[in-house]
Amino acid sequence: MMIKITFPDDSIREYEKGVTGLQIAESISPRLAKEVLACGVNGETYDLTRPIEEDAKVVLYKWEDEEGKHAFWHTSAHLLAEALQALYPGIQFGIGPAIEQGFYYDVDPGTATIKESDLPTIEAKMQEFASMKEPLVRKSISKADALKYFADRDETYKCELISELEDGHITTYTQGGFTDLCRGPHLPSTAPIKAIKLTTVAGAYWRGQEDKKMLTRIYGITFPKKKLLTEYLEMMEEAKKRDHRKIGKEMELFMFSETVGKGLPMWLPKGTALRLRLEDFLKKIQKEFGYEQVITPHIGNKLLYVTSGHYAKYGKDSFQPIHTPEEGEEYLLKPMNCPHHCEIYKWTPRSYRELPLRLAEFGTVYRYEQSGELHGLTRVRGFTQDDAHIFCRPDQVKEEFLSVMDIIFIIFKALNFENFEAQISLRDPVNREKYIGSDENWEKAENAIVEACKEKGLKAKIEYGEAAFYGPKLDFMVRDALGRKWQLGTIQVDYNLPERFNLEYTGADNLKHRPVMIHRAPFGSMERFVAVLIEHTAGKFPLWLTPDQVAILPISERFNDYAHEVKKYLDKNDIRASVDDRNEKIGRKIRDNEVKRIPYMLIVGEKEAENREVSVRKQGEGDQGVIKLEDFAKKLNEEVQNMINKW
Amino acid sequence: MMIKITFPDDSIREYEKGVTGLQIAESISPRLAKEVLACGVNGETYDLTRPIEEDAKVVLYKWEDEEGKHAFWHTSAHLLAEALQALYPGIQFGIGPAIEQGFYYDVDPGTATIKESDLPTIEAKMQEFASMKEPLVRKSISKADALKYFADRDETYKCELISELEDGHITTYTQGGFTDLCRGPHLPSTAPIKAIKLTTVAGAYWRGQEDKKMLTRIYGITFPKKKLLTEYLEMMEEAKKRDHRKIGKEMELFMFSETVGKGLPMWLPKGTALRLRLEDFLKKIQKEFGYEQVITPHIGNKLLYVTSGHYAKYGKDSFQPIHTPEEGEEYLLKPMNCPHHCEIYKWTPRSYRELPLRLAEFGTVYRYEQSGELHGLTRVRGFTQDDAHIFCRPDQVKEEFLSVMDIIFIIFKALNFENFEAQISLRDPVNREKYIGSDENWEKAENAIVEACKEKGLKAKIEYGEAAFYGPKLDFMVRDALGRKWQLGTIQVDYNLPERFNLEYTGADNLKHRPVMIHRAPFGSMERFVAVLIEHTAGKFPLWLTPDQVAILPISERFNDYAHEVKKYLDKNDIRASVDDRNEKIGRKIRDNEVKRIPYMLIVGEKEAENREVSVRKQGEGDQGVIKLEDFAKKLNEEVQNMINKW
Repeated sequence: MMIKITFPDDSIREYEKGVTGLQIAESISPRLAKEVLACGVNGETYDLTRPIEEDAKVVLYKWEDEEGKHAFWHTSAHLLAEALQALYPGIQFGIGPAIEQGFYYDVDPGTATIKESDLPTIEAKMQEFASMKEPLVRKSISKADALKYFADRDETYKCELISELEDGHITTYTQGGFTDLCRGPHLPSTAPIKAIKLTTVAGAYWRGQEDKKMLTRIYGITFPKKKLLTEYLEMMEEAKKRDHRKIGKEMELFMFSETVGKGLPMWLPKGTALRLRLEDFLKKIQKEFGYEQVITPHIGNKLLYVTSGHYAKYGKDSFQPIHTPEEGEEYLLKPMNCPHHCEIYKWTPRSYRELPLRLAEFGTVYRYEQSGELHGLTRVRGFTQDDAHIFCRPDQVKEEFLSVMDIIFIIFKALNFENFEAQISLRDPVNREKYIGSDENWEKAENAIVEACKEKGLKAKIEYGEAAFYGPKLDFMVRDALGRKWQLGTIQVDYNLPERFNLEYTGADNLKHRPVMIHRAPFGSMERFVAVLIEHTAGKFPLWLTPDQVAILPISERFNDYAHEVKKYLDKNDIRASVDDRNEKIGRKIRDNEVKRIPYMLIVGEKEAENREVSVRKQGEGDQGVIKLEDFAKKLNEEVQNMINKW
Repeated sequence: MMIKITFPDDSIREYEKGVTGLQIAESISPRLAKEVLACGVNGETYDLTRPIEEDAKVVLYKWEDEEGKHAFWHTSAHLLAEALQALYPGIQFGIGPAIEQGFYYDVDPGTATIKESDLPTIEAKMQEFASMKEPLVRKSISKADALKYFADRDETYKCELISELEDGHITTYTQGGFTDLCRGPHLPSTAPIKAIKLTTVAGAYWRGQEDKKMLTRIYGITFPKKKLLTEYLEMMEEAKKRDHRKIGKEMELFMFSETVGKGLPMWLPKGTALRLRLEDFLKKIQKEFGYEQVITPHIGNKLLYVTSGHYAKYGKDSFQPIHTPEEGEEYLLKPMNCPHHCEIYKWTPRSYRELPLRLAEFGTVYRYEQSGELHGLTRVRGFTQDDAHIFCRPDQVKEEFLSVMDIIFIIFKALNFENFEAQISLRDPVNREKYIGSDENWEKAENAIVEACKEKGLKAKIEYGEAAFYGPKLDFMVRDALGRKWQLGTIQVDYNLPERFNLEYTGADNLKHRPVMIHRAPFGSMERFVAVLIEHTAGKFPLWLTPDQVAILPISERFNDYAHEVKKYLDKNDIRASVDDRNEKIGRKIRDNEVKRIPYMLIVGEKEAENREVSVRKQGEGDQGVIKLEDFAKKLNEEVQNMINKW
């Protein structure tokens, strides 16, 4: 019997029922068969060796695809386990998933301990098994058999997992002498794993619970080519240098204090200057685009969030309510600004002529992240969204999307994010009843987003079924200088809050209508954005933005006076400068100011002071020669103006 | 026997022991004897008829003095009670104090009720007793006698009060047929009370506790001259028109939402624009004065406030702690920014060369005010301080005071507060052990403040014993256009927090020293300041500050296009303008925009559109004739520039 296989380009081919992904790839080209790692069958990822039993949409995943990498690293986790089993007899296994970058396995080595220094030996054993090109064999197994199999091997953790599974849905994978409880999918064999790096050993509680046993977690990453590993290691080295926590300290941008609390950043003067300059930049653009700033409190009565639905969603895992001694009310730190903005919308009756109403706020919100999840400025417990809510008529959605996209493009340009892509999240076409809002409005909004992207020439991947229940959205992903992906910029349609807050406007027909709400945040959060910007630029911010544009370095204390005179002149010309008048050698001053990533250093000594000149060193370019102070200021201001003109 | 009486000008006169304030006044001048209302004896306020038994510093208080008014209104409260006793037999009395503006008495009229419409009758009865010039007679009485006296008259509230008093310190005052438990002081008789106005009737729980009985509170105010009452009533009428809550609504500046929470202001777009302009104005000044902006979170671990001592002070009456589900920590909404700034100070070792370090933040803080105390923007639960903390060496205190005073003067000038005074709060000279910090540093700081005021030619009242235990301070009081006093601007020395946070700097001597901290807030809070500014200006803000500078009013829809062209031109010239293109008659448009207090209205019709002109109406001055659009823009910008140049 034949089945129909439909490919992503909508071409259709017929194959024998039971054909595998690998056979399909072989039928297309030998090269593809060599590169393919897994396949998608009607939205589910399959092993390449698993038979396809009915008509299906099929996608073949290679290393470039997330699904391909996922199978690759998942198999690598099993390979790690196989090696550990060989090296540490009696070792017991927890779980071993693929993660965003590589994989890990949690293990209980019993009386043995596994240290970083043991990793090369384990890597070598993995290499050995990989070069044996062991096939991975999938097997369905009954719950009773599974329990018996793992109990015989004293695998108590696996038994605990199996006891919670439903009979009839249990599978194992075996390669070489190692069998794991696993849903897959996996590579057909360990052969493609050519380069292996185990990176760290850490402790991890079994099932993430502090009252359970502490297991040993081994992290690693693997590649199909040696060259890719080399590149990865270089990238990691560079990433370490660009770590925003390290640079944030060197440039005196922000700090954390255990006394104030974990995950609560405090912006130091230079960081504040940077952040406020970013905020002013966005405020100015937003003003031109018809936004109005508002300011709302950082707390709200719990009932506000019950109305908005945020309490049901965030309540339990969030900062707990604040009780008031007098009235017995409960207040919450706001996890979102939208409910407050809805209340502002409701302040006065609105007419269709006032729409769109665009309310913007740099609103600081608080969410209780687990302390283990906190990371510098990227995962914090308090952050400031560059938030805005556009209240508009359904027929205005497209225009508003276009205008928000304009804002986002200006920002990307001004901050040198040249490499970005977008994702449109739409309804699941077969499951439309779970979405709030009329079919007509959804249709309108979804088309509006797709058309807006087309008009702007923006390449956007459409993901069906990825829309929130309350509306479709458009997300922007940028790649930083190291090629890492960051989600920045969201535009989200919302039919839910206008409903929940009973928002209305009087139409041209004199009847009451429900407005559409659009959430949008081009930066996302100031904290996270600044972190990304630091790692993207390695702290070498664009000249218009950077806290200190110029450092003035007198070659000895004799020229401190002239240095301060230079600073005064630059101040007057709106140039941000500092004087390093410490009693230090000029070499030391240059090195110290390089760490602060200051774009220009002006070295001043006898000759410069006499002629009202400065000796210029430019970041990354070195000595630029001697120039009149006035000319330097003029040139710098021109450089900034040229940047601004480009937006 | 003679005693020595020292007057405020340090002159000394001798009087017989037992002389009264009134007799002293008579000995000076008959006019003074007529005007004097009470006297201060060694810092305590005495009845004019109370004998002075030993050498004393004496101040004679007249109507102009707070102590004089206080006695006047306190006696008026008794006069009210006397009238009520005559009109409502069986009425029971709670308490009847003088307040900032007048007095009240809380009474329990039994089965009777007292309504606003009854007030004229009560006023007439008070007039009657006042014109009888009844003397007030003070009497010391034992606790037992006092209890018996009031119990015989069924005065249960008085008995409750007496039962809590210490025997030997109980006094009563009697005028006419009315006797009250009272500490005084009072006028010698009811004679000076020439004008009486009972203003409102309200409910008030006995002792302010919700579980106690609701009493009737009658508010009133009295004056020594009829003319003063007339002026007061006119002032009250004007104050009602200037109520910032009313104007805030008309000008669309801010709102409250019961759903968000009481006392939590939300700034509407125009209010936000106003507030941010004020903030930017101050930021610019502060930058020139060497301040650095920082941003800190709105919460902090409870331990931070235990360290700072704020928890002990604010903890119980404040918003209660936020618990975190994971770590079981407690966080507090910050009631103050200073602890956070101390942590920033501690971020890195500091050298004497870096001081003063001036950290500024528009920091939003939260304090749980009783709901009955909440009032518009002046008493709120969340407000933004224009806060800064100066960390300096003890020898820098004076210079820093001078520079903060400069900032405050610039602000007062820019915002047309011409009438202000200052108060210096110093240590109690006889009770020095209760203050923290070395005697030497106190001496230095107190002298610095006094000298700084002298150098600036600022008239400042010195109040001994009014300093906080942690340092002396300087407060500014402005009078608004209605003559009402508002406290704006504080500069406060602090030896306590540097101690508690163990702050240090390395001196020129290479040893560790403790810096001095100066708290200062020229506006105080943005919310309260904007409220005062609204009431001071009746919403007619200075041109440079006001949200909308210009309203453009097309006389019919035919000229809407030109009106928008005018707006575009003004936008380009940095002038804040709006177009009223509603389909309304021009008269209606003018009236509606007058309510919004827009300084300039530009009326545009056929002739104006043809000649690129505008017909100008100026706030308070009416028609200014027709002028070229370009010239109008130029003139307006000149007007703003002239204001800015004056600072």
